[in-house]
Amino acid sequence: MSDFSSSIDRDLPRFRAELCEFLRIPSISTDPERAGAIRDGATWVSDHMRQAGIPETEVIETEGHPIVLGERMVDDDAPTVLLYGHYDVQPSEPDDLWTAPPFEPTERDGRLYARGAVDDKGQVHMHLKALETRLSAGVDVPVNLKLVIEGEEEIGSRNLGQFLSENSERLACDAVLISDTGMFAPDLPCITTGLRGIVYTEINVYGPSSDLHSGSFGGAVVNPANALASILAGLKDEDGRATIPGYYDSVRAITDRERADLERLPMDEEILRQTVGSSELGGEKGFSPLERLWYRPTLDVNGLLSGFTGEGSKTVLPSKAMAKVSMRLVPDQQASQVVEAFEARVKELAPPGVRVEIRRFHGGEPWVADTEHPIFEAASEALETAFGTPPAFIREGGSIPIVQSFEDTFAAPALLVGFALPGCNAHAPDEWLDLSVYRRGIEALAHLYGGIGDKLKG
Amino acid sequence: MSDFSSSIDRDLPRFRAELCEFLRIPSISTDPERAGAIRDGATWVSDHMRQAGIPETEVIETEGHPIVLGERMVDDDAPTVLLYGHYDVQPSEPDDLWTAPPFEPTERDGRLYARGAVDDKGQVHMHLKALETRLSAGVDVPVNLKLVIEGEEEIGSRNLGQFLSENSERLACDAVLISDTGMFAPDLPCITTGLRGIVYTEINVYGPSSDLHSGSFGGAVVNPANALASILAGLKDEDGRATIPGYYDSVRAITDRERADLERLPMDEEILRQTVGSSELGGEKGFSPLERLWYRPTLDVNGLLSGFTGEGSKTVLPSKAMAKVSMRLVPDQQASQVVEAFEARVKELAPPGVRVEIRRFHGGEPWVADTEHPIFEAASEALETAFGTPPAFIREGGSIPIVQSFEDTFAAPALLVGFALPGCNAHAPDEWLDLSVYRRGIEALAHLYGGIGDKLKG
Repeated sequence: MSDFSSSIDRDLPRFRAELCEFLRIPSISTDPERAGAIRDGATWVSDHMRQAGIPETEVIETEGHPIVLGERMVDDDAPTVLLYGHYDVQPSEPDDLWTAPPFEPTERDGRLYARGAVDDKGQVHMHLKALETRLSAGVDVPVNLKLVIEGEEEIGSRNLGQFLSENSERLACDAVLISDTGMFAPDLPCITTGLRGIVYTEINVYGPSSDLHSGSFGGAVVNPANALASILAGLKDEDGRATIPGYYDSVRAITDRERADLERLPMDEEILRQTVGSSELGGEKGFSPLERLWYRPTLDVNGLLSGFTGEGSKTVLPSKAMAKVSMRLVPDQQASQVVEAFEARVKELAPPGVRVEIRRFHGGEPWVADTEHPIFEAASEALETAFGTPPAFIREGGSIPIVQSFEDTFAAPALLVGFALPGCNAHAPDEWLDLSVYRRGIEALAHLYGGIGDKLKG
Repeated sequence: MSDFSSSIDRDLPRFRAELCEFLRIPSISTDPERAGAIRDGATWVSDHMRQAGIPETEVIETEGHPIVLGERMVDDDAPTVLLYGHYDVQPSEPDDLWTAPPFEPTERDGRLYARGAVDDKGQVHMHLKALETRLSAGVDVPVNLKLVIEGEEEIGSRNLGQFLSENSERLACDAVLISDTGMFAPDLPCITTGLRGIVYTEINVYGPSSDLHSGSFGGAVVNPANALASILAGLKDEDGRATIPGYYDSVRAITDRERADLERLPMDEEILRQTVGSSELGGEKGFSPLERLWYRPTLDVNGLLSGFTGEGSKTVLPSKAMAKVSMRLVPDQQASQVVEAFEARVKELAPPGVRVEIRRFHGGEPWVADTEHPIFEAASEALETAFGTPPAFIREGGSIPIVQSFEDTFAAPALLVGFALPGCNAHAPDEWLDLSVYRRGIEALAHLYGGIGDKLKG
């Protein structure tokens, strides 16, 4: 087995400088004004795939943001590994809560701070540098490679599913490799074996046809902001459970083996509480924090807007009120069924005198892995080599809806090896990547691109 | 009795042009960036008091926005009338809902549209033109006049109370005249005999120390936006009554005579519904719409803000959530007691895992008039002369907290003669003043400035 340590150590300053360049591109996919940055991000990825040793690259147009495709064929009979990642990022707002500007990467205390540092530019970059490390040293990558790096992950991968199904022959593969997840603790490499799905909606409650004087009309008019509060409160009971009929019917019970896995993890509720900074943790009655995060569905308000929100007071009776509400789903909930039941429940909870409209944004199904597949052995070995300890099998509360699409399209298993640390502020101000994990992750992936071929050839 | 009709008709084009000039000044008192406009508003009022025939005027500094004082003494033994009004206006946002820009006065269909057209610049201007009409024609104003036009009414008259008490001798008066209220119907002049008080608060709910990824943390953290919704929903029961302990204890029951007065008014619930544009009216169970507006307290959300509110989706678990909440009060509720009980109830409703902070903005006590006082007779006669029909005694759901302060400071009754028509959009986009009411109002006030002297001497 090759040892990539010394070459990675030698090249690391350049790797970091390149990553900073990537992070300076404000490729926010939900913001129409950032279309230019999205395009810059795609071009950057394409250029750097070639630098890493991927001979064929292409920036492919979609109805939304482009997909960057890279290909390296070694042998028609060799197994094929497809790497998936994304170059788009979450919005950075509120920008004033960042210590340094979100698109000016800054190193502090062994961490690199920037929007996208860990989700997912940093992790995509680790793969490119792992491949470059092997290939520039003349060490074989014994699998055919397909790299699919998209620009719409943070807005629900709107055009990726169609792209995959339209290119299912060209992209046919034996395993799908994804690094967009995290580690349970700084020195514990992890493989993620389950993801939650998501349904994301916007509730708009309309009352009077324009804003009214709260004195002249208050008391005789149904206030849409009060009505929205009643609807949102009515969606959960006092035990923290959603009141949507049938919501829990298809939720799998936690097995004894899963409970045993959970108990082996170095879980410290007090550290989780300190990480989030709340006075105490909470959630659905009858479950532990990890069970709530990994095995139970949620119903969270992601945003609220109504009436006067400036400094001071304005005695207005608002004409409308809006809430963004999302639900994280677990096996075997189905997004389409959940959103139907949710809409019916919201309308049932709305009082007379207001009109309710519900918009649906992206949705995605939950996913669980078959951990008996040999690629999990390959990943375990590679991670143990770089990190000095075997990985833990964990789940992730977040959603990568496309994982299920990959498995369905290619009839191939997905392997999720991720490097985000707890508290890394993905989707929040001051997102960061641990630079020591970045270093060790590149080494682990450099090993993985060899070992996975052996296991797939089996 | 003099007839001012012909001179008003002659001068009306000039009066309107002057009013438009006044309305072009964006004197929004809650906005620190409008300090210059506030000063311009004060200067404008002072200049136009002198033009109207008030010999002594002064722009008096306060810790906030200036107060404009005008004085016209006729005789130390004559009764004194104090006119109160305000030159500040509500914020204009959302500006995109205005048909024409809020500070570019526009006439359409017999109405003058602009922020402040009716609340209160238009009504202050009617008084100045009524005085000018009498004095320029050489018709006596047989009372000493004190004009107090302030710039902080829309932010709770923060400095007026202290100004009045510090100048109680200089401003000593036998009656307080205020035009900041409305008419029940276009051809029905009205005297307002009761006002609701107000308590205005801001609830801030704090959860995690920064915004979190809703997937990575959703389910194990108490979401402050969900918590805020629960608090707001819990503040009212299913009958539309506030759940604040003791809230209704000191609310006066509606008397038989008051119910009889209500029944005489040309009230059409369907017209009210159409005016507000809701699908149906609502409110506290067991009361009619006018009872809810005039005789019952409220609890309304005036604004909501939390998390992501832009277009599209962002899977954020917000770190805080804010609601502006106000209560309209009726006799004999006391603002200080209500706000204490409200804060206790909010904290009781807050779930564990969040921290709640409540800010108090302006508050004001409810008020009722003694309609047996002779000034009510003077006003009735003046209004009947100009409008051709005797006025109705009505109440107003809004608050002019300073009315009670005036009565307390000077031991003098307040007379509220107002000219806003139903649906005039005070505090909302497309605020308007009826130009025919403006014309007849000036005439009525020109008569009133004579008649009130006779009654007070009587």
